[in-house]
Amino acid sequence: MTDITQISGNTRVYAIIADPIHHVQTPQAMNALFSARGEDRVLVPFHVAPADLAGVVSGLRGIQSLDGFIVTVPHKTAILELCDTLSDAAVLVGAANVVTRSGDGKLHGEILDGEGFVSGLRQAGIELEGRSVYLAGAGGAANAIAFALAAAGVAWLTIANRTSAKAQLLVDRIASAFPELQVVVGTSDPADHDLVVNGTSLGLKEGDALPCDVTRLTSQQIVAEIIMQPAITPLLAAAQKVGCRVHEGLPMLLCQIELMAAAMASRRVEP
Amino acid sequence: MTDITQISGNTRVYAIIADPIHHVQTPQAMNALFSARGEDRVLVPFHVAPADLAGVVSGLRGIQSLDGFIVTVPHKTAILELCDTLSDAAVLVGAANVVTRSGDGKLHGEILDGEGFVSGLRQAGIELEGRSVYLAGAGGAANAIAFALAAAGVAWLTIANRTSAKAQLLVDRIASAFPELQVVVGTSDPADHDLVVNGTSLGLKEGDALPCDVTRLTSQQIVAEIIMQPAITPLLAAAQKVGCRVHEGLPMLLCQIELMAAAMASRRVEP
Repeated sequence: MTDITQISGNTRVYAIIADPIHHVQTPQAMNALFSARGEDRVLVPFHVAPADLAGVVSGLRGIQSLDGFIVTVPHKTAILELCDTLSDAAVLVGAANVVTRSGDGKLHGEILDGEGFVSGLRQAGIELEGRSVYLAGAGGAANAIAFALAAAGVAWLTIANRTSAKAQLLVDRIASAFPELQVVVGTSDPADHDLVVNGTSLGLKEGDALPCDVTRLTSQQIVAEIIMQPAITPLLAAAQKVGCRVHEGLPMLLCQIELMAAAMASRRVEP
Repeated sequence: MTDITQISGNTRVYAIIADPIHHVQTPQAMNALFSARGEDRVLVPFHVAPADLAGVVSGLRGIQSLDGFIVTVPHKTAILELCDTLSDAAVLVGAANVVTRSGDGKLHGEILDGEGFVSGLRQAGIELEGRSVYLAGAGGAANAIAFALAAAGVAWLTIANRTSAKAQLLVDRIASAFPELQVVVGTSDPADHDLVVNGTSLGLKEGDALPCDVTRLTSQQIVAEIIMQPAITPLLAAAQKVGCRVHEGLPMLLCQIELMAAAMASRRVEP
């Protein structure tokens, strides 16, 4: 493992920008990855309020030892206009969560939430091409996951949200970007889909409602979470009872950490 | 020791700003101190070019998890006008090397080079009050040390520099700030002083000239360095040969690290 006394003038620096910052798990996960790989990199927490985001990000352009930063709540949308370039996914989703800094101070924004989720499924041997997917939620995380599922080649995508107008907006945006895909607004009923995904925050707190009607689940379905804590949410517990295969929330973070590390390292220009 | 995977959303962040950055020893030394004290703090290197300093420093005001930063070559003078307040010593010396950030984003600049040097002498049991001191050099480090020696109560201070006009300027500024002190421009002859201090960079590189005429040293004198590498410079080697007590450059850094840590921690406002 890497001790902090090994941080030197040659160490490449990364940050996570959030408000609040106390709860973030990215420093621990990313530094564990750097450490395991024996890389001379370190990620530190930057607590930045919305009003200060533009000034801070402008300043970060001038730090040559900084290769990039991760952006999370509440800055994922505001960061877009502070970048010089954006990935297609960031434009589609309307949010970025990884910003890489090139040697000349230019900033490139990407969104890896969805790609992290899809990579986590793939690493678990869950193929997406040609499958039908039920996605609960139409917020930030669900947006990113919906576009990543579409890009991964699912054949059918149903998006369900308590406010169905919000689901319709997302459906329209996906339909326009992926004309081949069957994408529709759904109800609370997840039946007749190969994969059921919770893209809401329901299940994070005790007493939360379930994200869909679990009485409609059948044992042939795979049920996947984005919530990491608890590992087995009420949704996953109900799915296990029916005999479904379940996929927990943690792989999404772990895969995203690797994708983030790769993205930030790839943009680095050697001095 | 503290592993980098222990860095979390609660960790307080510090930086050293320099250009170039590769050679700095402050991250290692400061992180060793944080680690030894079991403090949840970490210092990282920020490589910032002179043209980017103002923008970067302005951005750092908005990072609430950042308590301060150390400034070194070539930014120690330019940083002055980027601070909201300055210590008396920073104003006198015309340079700052530690900037603390208060909870409201205000920046306070201090210079601790000289205080670090004086603390190092004191920890070694070398008293300064009432003593006569010969100081070689009139550059940045010598400036800071001259003012700190004056503030520590030396009775007589001789400042010698190859360009004696530069020594005269420093003498004039010290005389004006410390009217009680006997302060004069000297020659290369360090005789008749209790303490002889090298405040130049001579001795850092092989083949450097000696900072003063070592044939004039006598065994009653103490000879002190600011150069850390090599530990025993040609000046100290010559002094040891004569039988002088010598004081190496390292304690200045170690004492300054503690002073810096204390300064940066003291300004922190709990969230």
